[in-house]
Amino acid sequence: MSRFFIAGSNIKGGTAIIRGRDAEHVHVLRLRPGEDMVICDGQGTDYKCRLVKADKEEVEAEVLEVVRCPAEPSVRVTVLCGLPKGDRTDYIIQKSVEAGAHEILFFHAKRCIAKPDEPEKKLGRWQRIAEEAAKQSGRGVIPQVGWAGEFVDVLNLAIQKDLALFLYETGEREPLDQVLEANRQIRSAAVITGPEGGFEPFEADLARISGLHVCAMGERILRCETAPVVALTALMYATGNLS
Amino acid sequence: MSRFFIAGSNIKGGTAIIRGRDAEHVHVLRLRPGEDMVICDGQGTDYKCRLVKADKEEVEAEVLEVVRCPAEPSVRVTVLCGLPKGDRTDYIIQKSVEAGAHEILFFHAKRCIAKPDEPEKKLGRWQRIAEEAAKQSGRGVIPQVGWAGEFVDVLNLAIQKDLALFLYETGEREPLDQVLEANRQIRSAAVITGPEGGFEPFEADLARISGLHVCAMGERILRCETAPVVALTALMYATGNLS
Repeated sequence: MSRFFIAGSNIKGGTAIIRGRDAEHVHVLRLRPGEDMVICDGQGTDYKCRLVKADKEEVEAEVLEVVRCPAEPSVRVTVLCGLPKGDRTDYIIQKSVEAGAHEILFFHAKRCIAKPDEPEKKLGRWQRIAEEAAKQSGRGVIPQVGWAGEFVDVLNLAIQKDLALFLYETGEREPLDQVLEANRQIRSAAVITGPEGGFEPFEADLARISGLHVCAMGERILRCETAPVVALTALMYATGNLS
Repeated sequence: MSRFFIAGSNIKGGTAIIRGRDAEHVHVLRLRPGEDMVICDGQGTDYKCRLVKADKEEVEAEVLEVVRCPAEPSVRVTVLCGLPKGDRTDYIIQKSVEAGAHEILFFHAKRCIAKPDEPEKKLGRWQRIAEEAAKQSGRGVIPQVGWAGEFVDVLNLAIQKDLALFLYETGEREPLDQVLEANRQIRSAAVITGPEGGFEPFEADLARISGLHVCAMGERILRCETAPVVALTALMYATGNLS
């Protein structure tokens, strides 16, 4: 069923109004009065609606049922990735949204090859990728994509979560499954992965000192764009959000 | 450390010989006598070696230590995907190899848009993608990529495994975590996912009748190229191969 996001203020008294780009989209999809659609307020609530009238500028739909979006996980995960080169960001955003991320933030790590001043220019496009992926995968929120800043900002953000995982491919690490099995009831988490060249040992040390769980994900070396999705999937599985 | 695959017959009496494309690769990487490298027999055994001499045609290395490749999972998973369009196959191959697949096979399902006669032409390229991903991620085998044929061939292949998962996004399904938690000790598995449009209900019925576990992976709709990696990751996590 077609899925649209609108601000909550446009749903009043059993009627939903869509304007702008999404109204055009309804038009392009050739949805007709009488057809059903889902309108989401972007806060995790789905409005199952029946189309009343649709033209290019404005769409009106009758609200039939209001439900919590079943696709939203019970845990809000902030995915934090060392900024990679090129379109790897796009891949990370799309797959993380599908896998259930609440927020996707990039940051500057020592081994980043991509320039930290580039992200500002790309935020608009990144957010559109997140929105498209949210619609396609049936999400109830549009995950925010943003720039977390420097590595210390990431640590400060991570320690505010119920669980903070720092995925690192060498040295002393905790087994991911033991950490996750001791944290099945968490409501928020941070998942931190490195750029192409991984993290510097001093970055892992800082994470450890800050109380983050420095974890292994098996002995296979994952690409920087694969690691966030694998970590997120393990977390969703362990917290009962993959069944 | 640089990683190369050679046939077992080229390692004899404590000396490993590399010829052809991999010898050229050693040359390109400018590895010098005295430097260490890992040579893998492609059967899960790693030979830690020290380079003795290297020219463009032939490389000779002294074997220092023989170990089981730590990156190889304890369960051999055959990933079976309804053939998708375009380069989604490449993505599925690369990410499945990183995530620990033993074998990746495509097949024809009712809703496939891609033509089933195309795969024959692409097998060489697919296998090279698997080989590159195996080297990069430190795998001990090069997963085979192939064509499984029609849907009934997939069912026949799947029922020979210790566990066969059929990922389906609607209707009556078993929770993935319950199925996996009851199968932590398996040695082989099949993970079956659909093409772009998903499976037809009759295909899910056939899978159910054949004794496969028809499972959900949460309420988020995953793209056809995302589903295999997510399913494989859940399986690796549940069988203790992600820590």
